[in-house]
Amino acid sequence: MRILVTNDDGITAPGLRELVNTLSEKHEVLVVAPSQEASATGHAITIRLPIWVKEMKIDDKFLGYSVMGTPADCVKLGLDVFSKGKVDLILSGINRGPNLGTDIIYSGTVSGALEGALQGVPSMAISMCDFDDPKYETGAKVAEKLVDEFPWELLPEFCAINVNVPDLPYEEIKGFRVTRQSRRRYRDYFEARRDPYGNTYYWMLGDVIEDDTSPDSDYLAVKEGYVSITPITIFLTAEDVYKELKRRMNR
Amino acid sequence: MRILVTNDDGITAPGLRELVNTLSEKHEVLVVAPSQEASATGHAITIRLPIWVKEMKIDDKFLGYSVMGTPADCVKLGLDVFSKGKVDLILSGINRGPNLGTDIIYSGTVSGALEGALQGVPSMAISMCDFDDPKYETGAKVAEKLVDEFPWELLPEFCAINVNVPDLPYEEIKGFRVTRQSRRRYRDYFEARRDPYGNTYYWMLGDVIEDDTSPDSDYLAVKEGYVSITPITIFLTAEDVYKELKRRMNR
Repeated sequence: MRILVTNDDGITAPGLRELVNTLSEKHEVLVVAPSQEASATGHAITIRLPIWVKEMKIDDKFLGYSVMGTPADCVKLGLDVFSKGKVDLILSGINRGPNLGTDIIYSGTVSGALEGALQGVPSMAISMCDFDDPKYETGAKVAEKLVDEFPWELLPEFCAINVNVPDLPYEEIKGFRVTRQSRRRYRDYFEARRDPYGNTYYWMLGDVIEDDTSPDSDYLAVKEGYVSITPITIFLTAEDVYKELKRRMNR
Repeated sequence: MRILVTNDDGITAPGLRELVNTLSEKHEVLVVAPSQEASATGHAITIRLPIWVKEMKIDDKFLGYSVMGTPADCVKLGLDVFSKGKVDLILSGINRGPNLGTDIIYSGTVSGALEGALQGVPSMAISMCDFDDPKYETGAKVAEKLVDEFPWELLPEFCAINVNVPDLPYEEIKGFRVTRQSRRRYRDYFEARRDPYGNTYYWMLGDVIEDDTSPDSDYLAVKEGYVSITPITIFLTAEDVYKELKRRMNR
């Protein structure tokens, strides 16, 4: 298969390197990734500024295209400019840290996969559920298994999968679980400071709230040692509300 | 009502000014908006950099808080730091240009409303469907009418409404229509250039594809002279795919 890989931790991030090294054994891999960390960029795209691109080499070996832009930019550029033909699959990751619950709306990693879905290519975001030295080798094995064995034919247009991997040795992973995006979210707060010139600035902080006890929820699967697979869509229409409003408001 | 207003065109944008002037007649309005244009920033938030905030005055009159950040940052700051009490409603706009179809995933305007929904406050994104000198006075009247008459009690937690207004004089608007997000999307392409130092950069361009003929679609409503109201949710789970995958993959 011909696989386009992007991420939001930047082209030199260890999660991407591990993924590419593992996939390259059996597949043709094209890397188009942000030149620097683009975490929490959500589904931003670069339309008011030009997007610089450099070919990235390490030890004289071509690694991929380094893009001064967002994960969504990378996917668009990868498909339109650099792929020179069909891309069978898009992978975004392996991210340092989970993308679970309502958090995924902020995630550059997930937006890489959603952009792929929007462009009509089967796509997967993959994240390790730990920030501190995550076991990317586990994530890479999980990715490889899903690339080979996931029933991609069940994924319709405009849909992708969001995969979260528990930070465990591969042998200790209990299995795969299909999940729903939970209502796991952050309670934000801000720390105000003053710069030496008297201007006020704020740091954004947040405490995670995990109060979704549904057995289908993404974060519970990971907590219990399963790889969480959530099918996600680009479409945001709230169908139940739509029906109720339509009954009430339309002629 | 106490209304928090943000946008993605920046705090000095005419669409925001028109909205604030109209709403201020009957309501208490708090403006927290990006210091400069933040179009197509999607649901980005600022977590790796501090967020500078200045009080913005025009002719010695306090206009609001100018934030070096994204619309989602503004909503979080507005609720946590500047609102000093309950916010009844969040409005994001009035945007210059439509937010229709799959496009809304890139929209800073829509993300302002989705962030409000995520924080548990009834929220609305509002956009004028024209880029060239839009009739913001129409949009402001539409906003006022919806603030007063929309059945906000039907909007559950984590949901917002995405409103698009045809660029017509208010009297020529045919009415309101509850719609679904259409599959209206862009076919992207890139224009490559070289800077004076020999580096390659790209400009992102795109042609809109409007091939969704569903009578419920958002862009058709606007085309036919109606204000489009789409209820949207923060949850991206593709429910049909979830059920099918679960049947196939879970134990």
